Amino acid sequence: MKLLRVGPAGRERPAVLDEHGRLLDLSGIVGEIDGDLLAGQGIERIRDAVAGGGLPEVGTAERIGPPVARPGKIVCIGLNYRDHAEETGAPEPAEPIVFMKAPNTVIGPNDEVLIPRDSTKTDWEVELAVVIGTTARYLSTVDEGLACVAGYAISNDVSEREFQIERGGQWDKGKSCETFNPLGPWLVTADEVGDVQNLALRLSVNGKRHQDGSTKNMIFGVGELVRYLSRFMVLEPGDVINTGTPAGVALGMPEPKPYLRPGDVMELEIDGLGRQRQTLGQPVGQT
Amino acid sequence: MKLLRVGPAGRERPAVLDEHGRLLDLSGIVGEIDGDLLAGQGIERIRDAVAGGGLPEVGTAERIGPPVARPGKIVCIGLNYRDHAEETGAPEPAEPIVFMKAPNTVIGPNDEVLIPRDSTKTDWEVELAVVIGTTARYLSTVDEGLACVAGYAISNDVSEREFQIERGGQWDKGKSCETFNPLGPWLVTADEVGDVQNLALRLSVNGKRHQDGSTKNMIFGVGELVRYLSRFMVLEPGDVINTGTPAGVALGMPEPKPYLRPGDVMELEIDGLGRQRQTLGQPVGQT
Repeated sequence: MKLLRVGPAGRERPAVLDEHGRLLDLSGIVGEIDGDLLAGQGIERIRDAVAGGGLPEVGTAERIGPPVARPGKIVCIGLNYRDHAEETGAPEPAEPIVFMKAPNTVIGPNDEVLIPRDSTKTDWEVELAVVIGTTARYLSTVDEGLACVAGYAISNDVSEREFQIERGGQWDKGKSCETFNPLGPWLVTADEVGDVQNLALRLSVNGKRHQDGSTKNMIFGVGELVRYLSRFMVLEPGDVINTGTPAGVALGMPEPKPYLRPGDVMELEIDGLGRQRQTLGQPVGQT
Repeated sequence: MKLLRVGPAGRERPAVLDEHGRLLDLSGIVGEIDGDLLAGQGIERIRDAVAGGGLPEVGTAERIGPPVARPGKIVCIGLNYRDHAEETGAPEPAEPIVFMKAPNTVIGPNDEVLIPRDSTKTDWEVELAVVIGTTARYLSTVDEGLACVAGYAISNDVSEREFQIERGGQWDKGKSCETFNPLGPWLVTADEVGDVQNLALRLSVNGKRHQDGSTKNMIFGVGELVRYLSRFMVLEPGDVINTGTPAGVALGMPEPKPYLRPGDVMELEIDGLGRQRQTLGQPVGQT
């Protein structure tokens, strides 16, 4: 199933995209698409309601929000594609590199992304987002890891490279700026995704293709990432893992690197997970 | 005022410690001590209720939980005391070092802290926690930063040094283990704290004093930290900032460093903010 949330920012309603491409309102069935829903029987309830028919259609003109209400945490994996590690000049990591992104960075897949004040190095990163459905704590196997996944979405792990790398040593500082995590359009349930380690991901800026990778080039696959992380923290339903980005970010290019500017347009897609499109803007009050 | 939450983990009720040392139940006045309460008129409502009298007393035998329900994010500042930077062999930072801790690490001030599986380097860090009361975005001055603070609490920024430093490059991996952020006992409103840059903080393990610092040795003070962070992320009501630890952590001691073991007891205090006491345990199933 393809679950989503539609409506104005902060007032989204749950919805589902059915197999005929119809957008159906779930407000009468579930309260919210969040960790509580994923942890309980919410998905089954939605499945039954769709099969039963009679759900009202949603107008297609509505804004699409992020497909899960604000996650408890966003855990990010660094340098997890062989080609991306190479372009940044970093050695292939021996174990996953872990950092975090503030949960209030999450916005809808087509919302405006703001270039922070004093930023000259805002960069893109198309990523496969994993949404946790079952609490993960001290897992032992890759299969246990995969069993804790509710579904997948497209994530843009927007990053400010000066803040991340040149301003004091830990990456988090360049990862948590306002609007820095477009997510969606859909949460696609794991059963519908097929082989998650064989999905193409692409990102273009102003129509020019920059990233064109595949999840088969991940150094650590989804099941292993969930297993690994569960040894260092408790993952909870609704938590999001950004699993790393393939080659093709501005940081990896020769000077002058084409960092994002106001008015630029990013377009992202992952096989089976839909598309995103964001225009770059500036915080209100910026001159 | 000293706000707190009492009752079993996950089912805490709001309470207040009045000037006579009585613990009063706020369940009839406010729903929860969280970001929404701090952002609105909740503090004033509580103040009026206490002044009006008639609030029921809470039994003193009840568990004390963390004083704010799960924060939206926990932002931590690294190496923010001159003496601690020195003991770790790191240069004094030119600007704040920022990392994050998963919000689901927060536990009550006297709850058991679990040594993670496969850990041999679990360490303590007494810290002044800042609880945000007003959304902070692109602030310009230290005074604006201070004006966004709802209050203060004791925080133990428990850290696993091997996970933090020897396992792949970003500190977050050693900061987010289950139970790694005892918080409380109270959220002390800013008006009651006086000069926040002149508070003594102390930590002992098994009765032996290891940390004995003062917030006057912070490299970046509270107002500056809030101002600075607001340029890199949006701070929201209920968010917590762990402002760094003074000298005296196990990491900074000569070999063999006295890292924590099951059965050890940590005791923490900060002037005016109360005391914490945690026993070290192990995750269920650990042999």
